[in-house]
Amino acid sequence: MSERLFAEIEKRMKRIQDYVLSESYVRRFAPEDMQEAVTAYFRSGGKRLRPAVLLFACGAVGGDESKAVSAAAAVEIFHTWTLVHDDIIDRDTLRRGQPTVHEFFSQKSLRNGRFKSGDESAHHYGVSVAILAGDVQHGWGISLMTELTTRYGIDPAVTLKLIDTLDTYVLTTLVEGELLDVQQSRMPIEALTESDIEEMLWKKTGALYEFCGAAGAAIGLNTSDFSHPLVKAISNFTSACGAAFQLQDDILGIIGDEKLLGKPVGSDIREGKRTLIVQHAYRRASAAQRELLNRVLGNEHATSDEIAEVATLLVNLGGIEYTKERAKACIQKAIPCLERVPVSYYRDLLADWAKLMTEREF
Amino acid sequence: MSERLFAEIEKRMKRIQDYVLSESYVRRFAPEDMQEAVTAYFRSGGKRLRPAVLLFACGAVGGDESKAVSAAAAVEIFHTWTLVHDDIIDRDTLRRGQPTVHEFFSQKSLRNGRFKSGDESAHHYGVSVAILAGDVQHGWGISLMTELTTRYGIDPAVTLKLIDTLDTYVLTTLVEGELLDVQQSRMPIEALTESDIEEMLWKKTGALYEFCGAAGAAIGLNTSDFSHPLVKAISNFTSACGAAFQLQDDILGIIGDEKLLGKPVGSDIREGKRTLIVQHAYRRASAAQRELLNRVLGNEHATSDEIAEVATLLVNLGGIEYTKERAKACIQKAIPCLERVPVSYYRDLLADWAKLMTEREF
Repeated sequence: MSERLFAEIEKRMKRIQDYVLSESYVRRFAPEDMQEAVTAYFRSGGKRLRPAVLLFACGAVGGDESKAVSAAAAVEIFHTWTLVHDDIIDRDTLRRGQPTVHEFFSQKSLRNGRFKSGDESAHHYGVSVAILAGDVQHGWGISLMTELTTRYGIDPAVTLKLIDTLDTYVLTTLVEGELLDVQQSRMPIEALTESDIEEMLWKKTGALYEFCGAAGAAIGLNTSDFSHPLVKAISNFTSACGAAFQLQDDILGIIGDEKLLGKPVGSDIREGKRTLIVQHAYRRASAAQRELLNRVLGNEHATSDEIAEVATLLVNLGGIEYTKERAKACIQKAIPCLERVPVSYYRDLLADWAKLMTEREF
Repeated sequence: MSERLFAEIEKRMKRIQDYVLSESYVRRFAPEDMQEAVTAYFRSGGKRLRPAVLLFACGAVGGDESKAVSAAAAVEIFHTWTLVHDDIIDRDTLRRGQPTVHEFFSQKSLRNGRFKSGDESAHHYGVSVAILAGDVQHGWGISLMTELTTRYGIDPAVTLKLIDTLDTYVLTTLVEGELLDVQQSRMPIEALTESDIEEMLWKKTGALYEFCGAAGAAIGLNTSDFSHPLVKAISNFTSACGAAFQLQDDILGIIGDEKLLGKPVGSDIREGKRTLIVQHAYRRASAAQRELLNRVLGNEHATSDEIAEVATLLVNLGGIEYTKERAKACIQKAIPCLERVPVSYYRDLLADWAKLMTEREF
């Protein structure tokens, strides 16, 4: 299944890439550092799973994918700006094998002599550029949404509904998820229930996937009625798959391949992320094992040996296995929703895509 | 003139305040820290000059102000999120007499024991909340723009054009202005020309005022044609006034009354802002005076005596007087644009408002 799916994703990835990196957009961004910052993540690749699923959803309801291309680009850019800001918040320095935006411009400002080595201002400059670059990408994403009507003739009621939904319901949900993540990582593990964690991770990831399904279907049907049975069916499907995506992300964060991931495995441990893996393992840990977990999780001075020891412990206590089961359960819940959509090549692609959520290693 | 104008601004300020703080919006924001952060600036007051001018512009072209209320709220919220992010970038801890968002949540997280005193993480938490709060406000502003059509029946072509303009042209211009400001404050003063500085400050402030005029007029006329003579006339008028507003802001930053401003006078000196005041004074300074300026401007360890000495020097070298003249020249340029608009009470209010730009002390 994967080869067909990858070929179809790849085709759309290239289309979105060409679309967003066209001169008419890029020349809007100035000065030079801002132009570089705003376009950096698009030049460096990425999985592009969100635009692909939006386009598949559009096709699956019998719509014309080519009318949804600006919306597909919009969700990718929308996702990107949230990463740029989250990387500042999570103090991540690497993403997709490249320095994150704030890290890159901090380093660049040292290289070009704007700041001197050891100057905290270089870090602050990098953070400033990344805050502003995310803001510009946010606006760019919304602007691309307006093209649904102005360039592709979609009913303006659909476009306005999508913009409103993306910029309030989806955005407030994403931000709530991110802030809950920050807050939970400071809380004692035993104070958190499984549903606290599943709520946080659906908000962080599921809400935008839900939107991708709804948007693709609504554009394909040219309807602003999100309670239309096909819009409901597909958005419920992508919503559940989004939760599985995040669970798999957490698994790869512990046992993934750094080269495929483009970021250091174990950083979730150092940051003290309260994943389902950690929560499940902690419940089954002995007193001595809990002591180790409490000492290493969220300890920025933890050694790589300690990180490795905790990773092994999380595996041995069944945290990975359990989380894998939960991810599969999400997909089990998703498939019946998809079955309400008429049979088509697009529906098959969506089913393949659902499997990818729990089987991917990148 | 001022009393009439203040009464009219006050009336609209209250209307906007009630509109944005209605339960239907506020309950969208979670968790608690986010709800508090997103609504903080609205609870603490502010000048509300942007929504007022948008509403006056709508009335001045014969439009019905009550149809523009969500757009007026939108520009205020849009302006607010840029302040929340700029305060992080400028490391400002006070605004309108209250702690800035990042400062407030840093302090709050210490008070409620989430972090311990001396923990750098408390500052990082405050910054994280402020980044996310600004993002949510950005989305909220755009969502309010969609109400122009969905709630007030404005032609969707107008609404989509306003959203696109605000989220690309205006946003990229504001961000460019902010980044130029950051970059210029690291450059030798003698390397900057008057037009470098005037370009930066128009981008930082004038672009959004230009938009307020254009939006009010376009809504009032229910047209998406921004080249309509009345839209052009009013947006050129508000654009020039916006530049004057920023020049006056820089003047108040040196010689203003801290109580009226709600922030410490002299912080522009400590941050090394390259204002027209500084640029003009530096050109006329002796070698010894230049040495003082170079030593104190942008020096975060400067004493209050040094700050006061530089402030006096900037006055004595004519920097304030010259900048005042430039601000008045902007208004001189603005008035003929306004004269292309038919006589009305609204036009008189706009003329009063223009005077306020250079005469305000708050």
